[in-house]
Amino acid sequence: MAIYFDNAATTPMDEAVKISILPFLNGQFGNPSAIHSIGRPVRAAVEKSRKTIAGHLNASPAEIFFTSGGTEANNTILLGCVRDLEIKHIITSPIEHHCVLHFSEYLQKNYGIQRHLLSVNDKGHIDQEELKTLLASIKEKTLVSLMHSNNEIGTMIDIDKIAHICKEYNALFHSDTVQTLGYYNFDLQKTPIDFMVCSAHKLHGPKGIGCLYIRGGHKISPLLYGGAQERNMRAGTENVIGIVGLGKAVEIAYASLEEKQVYIQGLKDYLIQQLTTNFEDIQFNGDYDGQSHYKVLNVSFPPSKYNDMLLFNLDVAGICASGGSACSSGIDKGSHVIQKLQKEAGRTPIRFSFSKYNTKEEIDILMDKLKEILQRS
Amino acid sequence: MAIYFDNAATTPMDEAVKISILPFLNGQFGNPSAIHSIGRPVRAAVEKSRKTIAGHLNASPAEIFFTSGGTEANNTILLGCVRDLEIKHIITSPIEHHCVLHFSEYLQKNYGIQRHLLSVNDKGHIDQEELKTLLASIKEKTLVSLMHSNNEIGTMIDIDKIAHICKEYNALFHSDTVQTLGYYNFDLQKTPIDFMVCSAHKLHGPKGIGCLYIRGGHKISPLLYGGAQERNMRAGTENVIGIVGLGKAVEIAYASLEEKQVYIQGLKDYLIQQLTTNFEDIQFNGDYDGQSHYKVLNVSFPPSKYNDMLLFNLDVAGICASGGSACSSGIDKGSHVIQKLQKEAGRTPIRFSFSKYNTKEEIDILMDKLKEILQRS
Repeated sequence: MAIYFDNAATTPMDEAVKISILPFLNGQFGNPSAIHSIGRPVRAAVEKSRKTIAGHLNASPAEIFFTSGGTEANNTILLGCVRDLEIKHIITSPIEHHCVLHFSEYLQKNYGIQRHLLSVNDKGHIDQEELKTLLASIKEKTLVSLMHSNNEIGTMIDIDKIAHICKEYNALFHSDTVQTLGYYNFDLQKTPIDFMVCSAHKLHGPKGIGCLYIRGGHKISPLLYGGAQERNMRAGTENVIGIVGLGKAVEIAYASLEEKQVYIQGLKDYLIQQLTTNFEDIQFNGDYDGQSHYKVLNVSFPPSKYNDMLLFNLDVAGICASGGSACSSGIDKGSHVIQKLQKEAGRTPIRFSFSKYNTKEEIDILMDKLKEILQRS
Repeated sequence: MAIYFDNAATTPMDEAVKISILPFLNGQFGNPSAIHSIGRPVRAAVEKSRKTIAGHLNASPAEIFFTSGGTEANNTILLGCVRDLEIKHIITSPIEHHCVLHFSEYLQKNYGIQRHLLSVNDKGHIDQEELKTLLASIKEKTLVSLMHSNNEIGTMIDIDKIAHICKEYNALFHSDTVQTLGYYNFDLQKTPIDFMVCSAHKLHGPKGIGCLYIRGGHKISPLLYGGAQERNMRAGTENVIGIVGLGKAVEIAYASLEEKQVYIQGLKDYLIQQLTTNFEDIQFNGDYDGQSHYKVLNVSFPPSKYNDMLLFNLDVAGICASGGSACSSGIDKGSHVIQKLQKEAGRTPIRFSFSKYNTKEEIDILMDKLKEILQRS
């Protein structure tokens, strides 16, 4: 079995998530909208999952809506804000995930809103003062959409601070929390986030399921039209397997969270230390030792004739890492995040991302393989 | 275990589908977009499913795109036609599923297209001559969207005939085939359907997954924006469990199809015979003994003091049926389909829908229970 350092792309499913799903592969097959005895227990399972998720965010179950994943969730929010909440300006950053970046561009072209891209420094941080100045200058309704942790470099915003700034300036605040829900605690009674999202497969749940938090009071219309599911917010028969698995994944993610945070941060620190000790001119992309997700380390390898084949050779050696976002690996034009931050040409970014299932021994093997690959004569 | 006659709402998962899914709950967890050894076999599984589905429709794998289900698939087509293919008119019927009916209304309101609702007769059939006259009168680009089989009453269009009429008048043709894919053979080299859809859970596959057929040459842009998945047609990490299960479900559905058709039609015929023999003034909604899906029988019970509680009492007696579409069971306003067709007030529609897992013995039990419920003193 390969060593897997690509947990920001997707994570192995937890055994307990799998066990939670099994009854719904067998026997528990009802349509949650059906009111008979085969439907009702399935509806109960869907609502139990919703309640679990809401509980961990200190939100109300009525504020949680299931979607097919993070992309649909982020798209739904952005479209809803523009279409239903009279948002005329979206303030975001150039290093957001494409589902925010491309979709906000689409909204600018097709819905006549204005999109503002904040500047980011070389660590991937936005400037809070720039945000405040911009918010002060805009007189129409505005949505700020900033991801909690960048999926490629790990750099994190101070989500509580940004949420309060938005509130102060009467702007709505959306955060793409795909990489952080289940990895950090949220208290939505304290932090005035208006919209956030979740993708189950980033936290050891199934792919193709996620959810959306919409703060009570915001009335947005659906992205998908049809049946009355999700209290008219999201048409289509519910992905029951996914919803049950998501609920279980969130429950597990928040159990002993602090221990896992410390453990995974330890792996990241160890890799940083090993890389800087063993190789010349290693750099790291993003705010790697500052406000950064403990599970992501984006390594910048110095120019070398081996770089083009580095990921390929790691793969051959049984080590899975990535050049950036998996969502874009089909495209051969490099990462928009790294392009934005990198000042020096010729360096090669490799993202190593960890989970609770990784070990120091795996990092030792990685170091051995990297030495072999990069120091070939 | 209850007797399940609600197979048009959803179906129990096939054992073989479950088995096909298990490896992806355990071990095979990679992101199909990841190019390393953990991602590649998952990509292969996704593409195998696509190829299976395409093969059974006599289509090209490049014409199949996975979605979160039938609703997303139908919405994607309608939006894409209006936004990208210069469709100015949508011709549809008043008894379509809400994901076509509501969404085409939304498009009329928000995209300035004109929607035309064909008349339907008391069996739920449209008038082909009316369609031709309408098509002849419209000079702008037109999409005809008609479901292959109505989900509530079973009435079917002559899909080959309608497809050829659309072609003759240079209109695009979309069919909501959610209830028929896997139940009838399609040959897309012979039948000029432009767009059709599938929902796995209607054919013994998992919920939350479906697909979309787009005839090669039609370039429509995505409903969901973000990553480059599905060749830029549908952003978001693929629902691998669902996709694998869908492929297997389609494969199983088309194995010995004719035998299953005959068997299930036999159940429907038996229920018709039993009901008409045992009860006075039983009627059936739709073209039940003509062009009708063999799995659906919508029974119209005469006015009676027991009708209000009929479904409830069947449920208590361990029999699952429905009043109409499960997608609308949350809403307490009755079926838009029955409202459209029914001439006589006070009658109660109950949809019985069958699968290969039902038996005549179950229908005998149903008859006993119905006698008890409807003939109480």
